[in-house]
Amino acid sequence: MEIPAKVLEIAEGIKTMRIRGAGRIARAAAEALKIAAENYKGPNDPGEFRKYMSRIANLVISTRPTAVSLPNAVIYVMYNLGKASGNVEELKRIVVSTAEKFIEESLNAVKKIGMIGARRIKDNAVVLTHCHSTAAASVIITAYKMGKIVKVYSTETRPFYQGRITYKHLSEHGVPVTQIPDSAVRYIMNEVDQVVVGADTIASNGAVVNKIGTSQVALVAHEARVRVFVAAETYKFSPATLIGELVPIEFRPPTEIVPQEWIDKHRNVEVLNPAFDVTPPEYIDAIITEQGVIPPQSAILVLLERFGWALEKIKQGGLGKILFEETLEE
Amino acid sequence: MEIPAKVLEIAEGIKTMRIRGAGRIARAAAEALKIAAENYKGPNDPGEFRKYMSRIANLVISTRPTAVSLPNAVIYVMYNLGKASGNVEELKRIVVSTAEKFIEESLNAVKKIGMIGARRIKDNAVVLTHCHSTAAASVIITAYKMGKIVKVYSTETRPFYQGRITYKHLSEHGVPVTQIPDSAVRYIMNEVDQVVVGADTIASNGAVVNKIGTSQVALVAHEARVRVFVAAETYKFSPATLIGELVPIEFRPPTEIVPQEWIDKHRNVEVLNPAFDVTPPEYIDAIITEQGVIPPQSAILVLLERFGWALEKIKQGGLGKILFEETLEE
Amino acid sequence: MEIPAKVLEIAEGIKTMRIRGAGRIARAAAEALKIAAENYKGPNDPGEFRKYMSRIANLVISTRPTAVSLPNAVIYVMYNLGKASGNVEELKRIVVSTAEKFIEESLNAVKKIGMIGARRIKDNAVVLTHCHSTAAASVIITAYKMGKIVKVYSTETRPFYQGRITYKHLSEHGVPVTQIPDSAVRYIMNEVDQVVVGADTIASNGAVVNKIGTSQVALVAHEARVRVFVAAETYKFSPATLIGELVPIEFRPPTEIVPQEWIDKHRNVEVLNPAFDVTPPEYIDAIITEQGVIPPQSAILVLLERFGWALEKIKQGGLGKILFEETLEE
Amino acid sequence: MEIPAKVLEIAEGIKTMRIRGAGRIARAAAEALKIAAENYKGPNDPGEFRKYMSRIANLVISTRPTAVSLPNAVIYVMYNLGKASGNVEELKRIVVSTAEKFIEESLNAVKKIGMIGARRIKDNAVVLTHCHSTAAASVIITAYKMGKIVKVYSTETRPFYQGRITYKHLSEHGVPVTQIPDSAVRYIMNEVDQVVVGADTIASNGAVVNKIGTSQVALVAHEARVRVFVAAETYKFSPATLIGELVPIEFRPPTEIVPQEWIDKHRNVEVLNPAFDVTPPEYIDAIITEQGVIPPQSAILVLLERFGWALEKIKQGGLGKILFEETLEE
Amino acid sequence: MEIPAKVLEIAEGIKTMRIRGAGRIARAAAEALKIAAENYKGPNDPGEFRKYMSRIANLVISTRPTAVSLPNAVIYVMYNLGKASGNVEELKRIVVSTAEKFIEESLNAVKKIGMIGARRIKDNAVVLTHCHSTAAASVIITAYKMGKIVKVYSTETRPFYQGRITYKHLSEHGVPVTQIPDSAVRYIMNEVDQVVVGADTIASNGAVVNKIGTSQVALVAHEARVRVFVAAETYKFSPATLIGELVPIEFRPPTEIVPQEWIDKHRNVEVLNPAFDVTPPEYIDAIITEQGVIPPQSAILVLLERFGWALEKIKQGGLGKILFEETLEE
Amino acid sequence: MEIPAKVLEIAEGIKTMRIRGAGRIARAAAEALKIAAENYKGPNDPGEFRKYMSRIANLVISTRPTAVSLPNAVIYVMYNLGKASGNVEELKRIVVSTAEKFIEESLNAVKKIGMIGARRIKDNAVVLTHCHSTAAASVIITAYKMGKIVKVYSTETRPFYQGRITYKHLSEHGVPVTQIPDSAVRYIMNEVDQVVVGADTIASNGAVVNKIGTSQVALVAHEARVRVFVAAETYKFSPATLIGELVPIEFRPPTEIVPQEWIDKHRNVEVLNPAFDVTPPEYIDAIITEQGVIPPQSAILVLLERFGWALEKIKQGGLGKILFEETLEE
Repeated sequence: MEIPAKVLEIAEGIKTMRIRGAGRIARAAAEALKIAAENYKGPNDPGEFRKYMSRIANLVISTRPTAVSLPNAVIYVMYNLGKASGNVEELKRIVVSTAEKFIEESLNAVKKIGMIGARRIKDNAVVLTHCHSTAAASVIITAYKMGKIVKVYSTETRPFYQGRITYKHLSEHGVPVTQIPDSAVRYIMNEVDQVVVGADTIASNGAVVNKIGTSQVALVAHEARVRVFVAAETYKFSPATLIGELVPIEFRPPTEIVPQEWIDKHRNVEVLNPAFDVTPPEYIDAIITEQGVIPPQSAILVLLERFGWALEKIKQGGLGKILFEETLEE
Repeated sequence: MEIPAKVLEIAEGIKTMRIRGAGRIARAAAEALKIAAENYKGPNDPGEFRKYMSRIANLVISTRPTAVSLPNAVIYVMYNLGKASGNVEELKRIVVSTAEKFIEESLNAVKKIGMIGARRIKDNAVVLTHCHSTAAASVIITAYKMGKIVKVYSTETRPFYQGRITYKHLSEHGVPVTQIPDSAVRYIMNEVDQVVVGADTIASNGAVVNKIGTSQVALVAHEARVRVFVAAETYKFSPATLIGELVPIEFRPPTEIVPQEWIDKHRNVEVLNPAFDVTPPEYIDAIITEQGVIPPQSAILVLLERFGWALEKIKQGGLGKILFEETLEE
Repeated sequence: MEIPAKVLEIAEGIKTMRIRGAGRIARAAAEALKIAAENYKGPNDPGEFRKYMSRIANLVISTRPTAVSLPNAVIYVMYNLGKASGNVEELKRIVVSTAEKFIEESLNAVKKIGMIGARRIKDNAVVLTHCHSTAAASVIITAYKMGKIVKVYSTETRPFYQGRITYKHLSEHGVPVTQIPDSAVRYIMNEVDQVVVGADTIASNGAVVNKIGTSQVALVAHEARVRVFVAAETYKFSPATLIGELVPIEFRPPTEIVPQEWIDKHRNVEVLNPAFDVTPPEYIDAIITEQGVIPPQSAILVLLERFGWALEKIKQGGLGKILFEETLEE
Repeated sequence: MEIPAKVLEIAEGIKTMRIRGAGRIARAAAEALKIAAENYKGPNDPGEFRKYMSRIANLVISTRPTAVSLPNAVIYVMYNLGKASGNVEELKRIVVSTAEKFIEESLNAVKKIGMIGARRIKDNAVVLTHCHSTAAASVIITAYKMGKIVKVYSTETRPFYQGRITYKHLSEHGVPVTQIPDSAVRYIMNEVDQVVVGADTIASNGAVVNKIGTSQVALVAHEARVRVFVAAETYKFSPATLIGELVPIEFRPPTEIVPQEWIDKHRNVEVLNPAFDVTPPEYIDAIITEQGVIPPQSAILVLLERFGWALEKIKQGGLGKILFEETLEE
Repeated sequence: MEIPAKVLEIAEGIKTMRIRGAGRIARAAAEALKIAAENYKGPNDPGEFRKYMSRIANLVISTRPTAVSLPNAVIYVMYNLGKASGNVEELKRIVVSTAEKFIEESLNAVKKIGMIGARRIKDNAVVLTHCHSTAAASVIITAYKMGKIVKVYSTETRPFYQGRITYKHLSEHGVPVTQIPDSAVRYIMNEVDQVVVGADTIASNGAVVNKIGTSQVALVAHEARVRVFVAAETYKFSPATLIGELVPIEFRPPTEIVPQEWIDKHRNVEVLNPAFDVTPPEYIDAIITEQGVIPPQSAILVLLERFGWALEKIKQGGLGKILFEETLEE
Repeated sequence: MEIPAKVLEIAEGIKTMRIRGAGRIARAAAEALKIAAENYKGPNDPGEFRKYMSRIANLVISTRPTAVSLPNAVIYVMYNLGKASGNVEELKRIVVSTAEKFIEESLNAVKKIGMIGARRIKDNAVVLTHCHSTAAASVIITAYKMGKIVKVYSTETRPFYQGRITYKHLSEHGVPVTQIPDSAVRYIMNEVDQVVVGADTIASNGAVVNKIGTSQVALVAHEARVRVFVAAETYKFSPATLIGELVPIEFRPPTEIVPQEWIDKHRNVEVLNPAFDVTPPEYIDAIITEQGVIPPQSAILVLLERFGWALEKIKQGGLGKILFEETLEE
C-alpha cells in the first residue's frame, strides 16, 4: 500500500524539526492522517482501510517519539476510527472529520484557556509566571485586557532565557512586566497574588512536567499560600502515564551552563542540566484546560474523555503495541 | 429452589477459612455464582432466575462479612446481571462469562500491577516496603528484574513479623533486602527513593486501610519528600464506603504483644493491638491498579467503573439491602 | 407566548425573598418550570415548546442571579429536556417528571446526607460545627440518635450569631451543645474528633465556599489532624466554576460589626464584612452528598453526572449564553 | 513590725482593682516596696531589715496572685536586695533605687518597644493586630509616624470588643484602620505584611499567652508566610514557668457569649468562654521587648537577666516558697 | 604518682559494665575523682596536684568513651578545679565538695524533673511514652499522684521490649498503662494529650538522641498538634557537640531482629539495627531538666552554665585534647 | 587632635573599595584602631584618650556604613576599651591587644569553622552549596580531606555566577563538583544529604541574610528533610538587629539580568535584582561559628558574648548614637 507524498512530507517535517511546537506538531499529525484517508487507494474493504490507517499512524508517531502532543493527536483520530463502524467511505469521513475537529479545537484551545483562566484572576492581581507558555500568556493577556492585572513578574528562566520571550510577548500587549532572576522568586512571592504557568506533559496522577524550576516556584508559592494555576491544552495529558510510563526528562548540553572556554580548559567539567522537573499535584490549585477548570487529581478524567477506547487498547497492548515500545504483554 | 452442592461447599470453605486470602476468596465467590447459574433448575422465567441468583449472592456474601473482596466479586457479577436483559439462557451466559472474566482478571491483576508499577520505579532505586503484599512484591520483583532496584528495606512488621515473609519472598527472587525494626523507618528514610506498600481496602475518598504502621511509614516518607505508591487490585476498592460505611478495624489478641506468662501473672493487662490503620490520601502519590496509575482522590472512578449500576442500587437500598445491614431507607 | 400567572408569582416570590433558603428556592424554580410546561398553550411543535421553556428558564434564573441552587435547578430540568426527543406531549412529560424528581430528591437529600454522614462519625465523638447548616445538623442529629456523639461544639458565628440557631436546633433534638466564641476554636480543637460543616457553593476544583470563618476552622482542624467533613446537597456544586467563574463573595453592611452610634459619631468608619470565605480542598477530608461520600477533588464528577450535557452547552456558549453573562464566544 | 499605712493602701488598691492594668499594678508594687524601705523603723540589723522586706513582699504579692507583672515587680526588687550586702542604710538605698529604676523602666518600656518594633515594620506595610495591646499599638503608631504603614486591620475581638478600643486608639493617631470580624482573618491574610500583637504572659519555652484568638491569628499568618511579632515588656516573662507552672487560663461568664434571656429561658446553657490561649513559639518570628528583638526561644535569657538570683531561689524553694504555693521541696 | 586502688576499682567497674546506667556511671566517676583528691600523696604544689587530677580524669574518661554522662561528670569537677585558685588543701576541698555536689544533684535530679514536669501535665491527661526512661517515668508517676493522668500508652519498643519495663514500673505505682506495638502510635495519637520521653544525649543545637523510634513518635505527635516533652538530667547535654562532634549511633546485632535459626539457614542476612535516632528540635516543645523547663534551642545555655570554662578549654584544645581525639589544633 | 596618616589611609582604602571582603575590611578596621592607639599624642588623661578613640571609631565606621563586619570590628575593640579602667598606657595596651586578638581570631575563624563543620558532615555525603562562601568552602574542603564527601552540587548563582568561583575553588582541592542551574535545586535535592551555605549577616532572631536564592535552597531542603548548615564567623552577627534595625537589601543594576541592547531598544525595562534574601531560622539546622555549633535561635548569645557592654550602650543610645543614625532617644 502506497503512502501519499504529502504525508511523507509532513512526517519528514516533524522529524527534521521544521515543524516545531507542541501545538503545531499535533495539528500536522492530524493533517497527515486526514490526507492519508482522503488519498486511500486500497481495496474497498473496511479492514484493509483500518490496517492502512494503522500503518500511517505508526509512521507519523515514529517521527518524534518523546513529544506527548504527537501521539495524542494520532490516538485521538484513531480512537474515533476504532469506535466507528461502516464502509470505507464512512470510515474515511470519520477520519477526515475527526482530524479537522482536532485541528480546530487545537487552534481554539489557547483562546478558550485564556478566557477561562482570566476569569480566575483576581482584581488588581500581581501575577508571576515562569518560562514561556502560550497558554499561560493567553490567560495573563486576557485578564490584563479585562483590567484585572497590575503587574506580572517573569523569571528570566536560565539557561535559555525563555523569560525574555515572555517579557517581550506580554509587553507587546501592554502588560507591565518585571523581570527577575530565577533565584529571586521567594524574595517577591509575598507580593504575588497568583502564579500561572504552562505545562509540557500532565501525568495521570495530576503531576505536571514543565520547564526546570517550575516545581520550585510552586513550592515557594505554596509556602506563602499563593495559588498556582497550570494552563494546558488537553492534548498535554499523557495516556502513557496511566500504565506507569515515566515522562522522560531531557538533559541538555553543559555549554548552556558553563562557557565553552571553561570546558576547553578544564577536564571533567561536570554539569547537570535537566530541561524539566515535576510539580506534584498538591502544589497546584487547578489546571485550566480548554474543557474547563479541573483539580490536578482529576487529570485522569481528561484522559478518559479523550482517549477512553484507546486507553483500553493501550492497557490490552493493542494500540499500545503500536504506540509504545513496552506493553503489558511483553 | 435448590442450591447446588458445589456452591454450598464453596460457601462452607470460605466460612471455615479453608479458602483464604483476598484474591482466592473473591475468585471462589465468582466461581460459586458461575456454578449456581450453570446448575439453575428453576422455571424458564428471567424474573425467577434473578431471584434465585440474588439468594445465592446473599448466601455467598454472608459467609465472611468483613472481607471487601468477597462482596466485590459478587457485586461485580450481579451488577452485570442487573444491567442485562434477555431470556434465562442469555442471563445464564451473562453470569457465567462475567464470573469467568472476573476470575481471569483477578489472576492477571497482580502481574499487570507488577508491570505498571515497575515502570514507576526509578533507576538505582532504594525501595522501602512494610508488611507483606503480593501486589507490592510484584512491583518490586518486576522492577528488580528490569535492573532498577539496588536495595529494598523491609520492616519486620510486629507483632506477626510478616516482614519476614517479604524478606524470604523477595530474597528468593534475588532482590537484596535489609530487614529493619518498625521503629527505624525514620532513621533510614532519607536513603529511600520510593515506598511501595499494598492495601487491604481503599475507601471512596482515597484513604487506604492497610496493616498497622502503614500510615506512619507514609507520614515519615512525606516528611522526607519520598513518594508513596500503593499497589492494589481494583477489587480492594470498597463501594460501601461511598455511603459512609467505615472500614472496620480488627483488634487482635494481647498475646501477640505481651507474653502469655505476663498475662497469667498480672491482672488487668491492658493491650491495644489494632491490625490496620488508615493512611490519608494526601500521603499517597498514586495507587497502582491493574487498570492503571491513579491518584488516590480518583478512587471513586474505580468504583464507578466497576460497580456503576450496583452503586445506584446500594444507594437506593436495593442490592444495598441485601449487602449491608444499614441502608438509607432505615 | 403567554407566561402562566403562577410562574410569575413564583418568580416574584424569589425576587422579593419571600421564598428563601437554598433548598426552597431551588424547589420553587423547578415547580415553576413544571407549571410552565403543564400550562403550555403554544403550537404543537417541539421547537416552539423548547423556545418557550428557554424563555421561562431565563425568566426564573434572572430573579436571583447569585444563588447557585437556583440556576442548578433550572439547568437540571433543562438538561433533561435538551437530551430528550419526541413530540410536545412527550417533552412536557419529561419536564414535569424531571422537575418532580428534582423536588423529591431535594427533599430527601438532607435526610440521606444525615444517614451517610452519620456513619462516618466515630463512636463517642466530640464534633465541632460552624454557623448553621441543615445538612450538617442532619449528620450530627442522626449520629447522636445512633448514640455516637457525646458533645458538640458550636461557634457563635459573628456577626449574625447563626451558631445560636445551631445551638437551639441541636438542643431540641437532645444533642449536648457547648457554645464557644469564634476565636476559641483553636483552644478546644485538640478535644475535637471531627468537624462537620455545610457549604454554600462547591467549585469544580473542590474548593468550598461557606460562611466566613469556615476556612479558619478547617485550617485549625488540619493543624491538629482532625478530619473535616462538608455536608452538601449536590445542587450546591457550581457548574459555572468549571469555566473559571469565581464564586462571588457578598459583603455585608458595617453595622453588623460596629454599632450604629459609632458610625454616626465617626467619619470614615472602615469595616470589611465578607459573608463567605473559601476553604481549599486540601483541608477537607470528604464531602458528604446525598449521592455518597466523595473527596473534594472529585467535585467535578458530581458536575458531570448532574449537568453533563448542560456543561457542554455552557462551554459552547449555548445554554451558557442564557445563564451567564460572560461566555467563551464574547 | 509595723507596716506603713501607705503600703497597706496600695495593697488594698490592687486587691480591689482600683489599680488596674499590668503596667500600673507592677509600678504600684515597686512603689510599695520603696515606701516600705524608706519607712523601715526596725532594729539596725540587716537580717531584720531583710525579714521585714520579705513580709512586705509576701503581702504585696498576695493581693492579686494571677497577674504576672505583680510578682515580677516584687521579685525584681527583692532579687537586687538579695544580691546586695551592706548595712541597713545601704540596703535601704538598694531597695529604693531598684524600685525607682523598675518604675522608670516600666514607663519607658512601651516607648522603647514602639521605637524598636517600628524599625521592623516594612515600608508600605499592611499590618494586622488582634485585641488591644498598648505595646503593639506603640509599635504601630510609631511606624505610622515614620510613614511606613498604609493600613491596619483590627479584629473586633469578641466577646468584649477590645478591637474597638484599638480602632479608636489608632484612629486618634491618624492610622487608617479597618475593623473585621474575628472569623475574617484568613480572608484578608494574604493582603497583610506583618502581624503585631501583645502578650499577657510569656513562658520560659517561648510560648505566648494572650487574648483568646491570638493563636488562630498566628497560625493563619504562618500558613501565608506572614511574620508575627509579639510586643511585650520584659515583666511579662514568667519565671514560674521555668519550674513547670502552667499559666492559668481564666474562664469568663457565659453571658458574654449568649444573651441573659437565653440563659433565663433554657436550662443547661453550656458555654465555654476562655479569656486566653497559647501561641506556640514556632508561629512567632520575634518578641519585641524594651531590651531588644529576641526569638521566642530565647525567652529564658530575659528570665536569666532579670531574675537570675531569684530563679535560683525559686528552684530551691526559698523565695519560691513565698511566691508559689507548690515548691520543689513538697 | 600513684593512683589509689579504689579509683582503679571504680574505673574497672565502669569498663566491665558492672557499673551501668547513665546516672550510676556519672556518680561513680565523680566518686573516683573525690577519692583521688582525698588520697593525693604528691608534693604540696598546686601545679602538681592539678597534673595528678588530669591524669585521673583521663583515666576515668577512657573507661567508656561513648557514654555522655561519664565525661560530663569529670568535666564538671575539673571545670571547678580549673576555675579555682589556692593551695593544695584548698584545691582538694574544691574537688571533694564539687564531686559531692555533683553526686547529690544527680540523685535529686530525677525527683526534681518529676516535680517540674508533672506541673506541665494537663488535668485528665492521656500520656504516651516510648521505651523506658527513669526521668520520664518520674514525670508520669508524679503527675499521676497529683491526680492528673487517666491513661498512659506505652510502646513495646522492639527489639528489646523496654516498654515492658515501663509497663511494670508504672503499674507498680498504680498508673493505668496500655501497651501498644510501636507501629500503632499514629493509630492512637489523636487520643493522646502529651508525649513524655527521656533522652540519651542532647546536642548543642537542641537535637535529642534517644532510643530508636523516638523521632517517629515525635513526628506523629507533631502532625496531631500533640506536645512533646523530653525529660533529661543536665548531664545528658553533650559539650562535644558544640565543636561539631556527631553523637555516635550504636548498631546492635541482627539476632535482636531475626531469629538465630534464620541466620544459620540463610547466607547474607542483612539487618540494620540502630539503637538510637535523632529527634530535631522543631518536634520538641520543651526539655524538662532539674534546672527548669527550657526550649530545645536553649540547650546551649545548659552547656554554658555547667561547662563554661571547660567549653573554652575544649575549643582551645586544652581539656579538649584530653577528652576528645580530634581537636581544633590538629 | 591629629589622626595618624596610616589610619586615614586605611579609611580611604575601605571607602574606595581597595580593601574588600567582609574579613579583610574587619581586620583593616581593627588595624586602624590599633595604629591610632599606638600613635596617640594627646594629653596623658584617660578621658581624653577615650574621646580620641571614639573619634577614630566614628571615622572608621563611616567609611562603609552597610557592611556588618566593619562596625563589628570597631565595637569589639571599643567594647573592651569601654569595660577597662586604668591610665592611658594601660588603655593603649588594651586597645592594641584587643585589636590584635580580633585580627588573629578573624584569621583563624575560617579554619576553625572548617574543622567544626566538617565533623558535622556525614560519611559518603552529597553536599549542596549556593554562591561562594569562604567559610562554607572551608567546611566542604576539610570534610572532603577527611574522606567524607563523594559529591558537591554547586549552583551557578545568577546573575554573577559566583557558583563558578565555588566550582574552581573546590575543584582545585580535588573535590568532585557538579554545576547546576539555580532552578534545578529541587530536581536534585532528594539526592543531597546536607546543605552548607555562608552568610552575609545574621540577625538577633536567627534569620540569615545571604545571597539571593539562599532562602529558596533552604526551603527546598526543608521540604525534603535535608539539614541546612550556615557557616559564619561571629563578626557576621549584627548587633543593630537587636534594636530592630532591618538588614538593608542591596538592589543591583538591571544590566546584570537583561542585556544592554535590550535596555537601549525598549523603554521602561523593569527589572528587580535584589542581591540578598532572608532565610528564616526554622529552615536552618545549625550555624557553624568558630565558637561552636549553635541553633539559629541562639544567635543572640553570640551578640551577648561579643558585644555585651556595647549592646547596653547601643540600647541606651550611647555608642548607639555614634554607630547608628537612629537611636532610642530620638
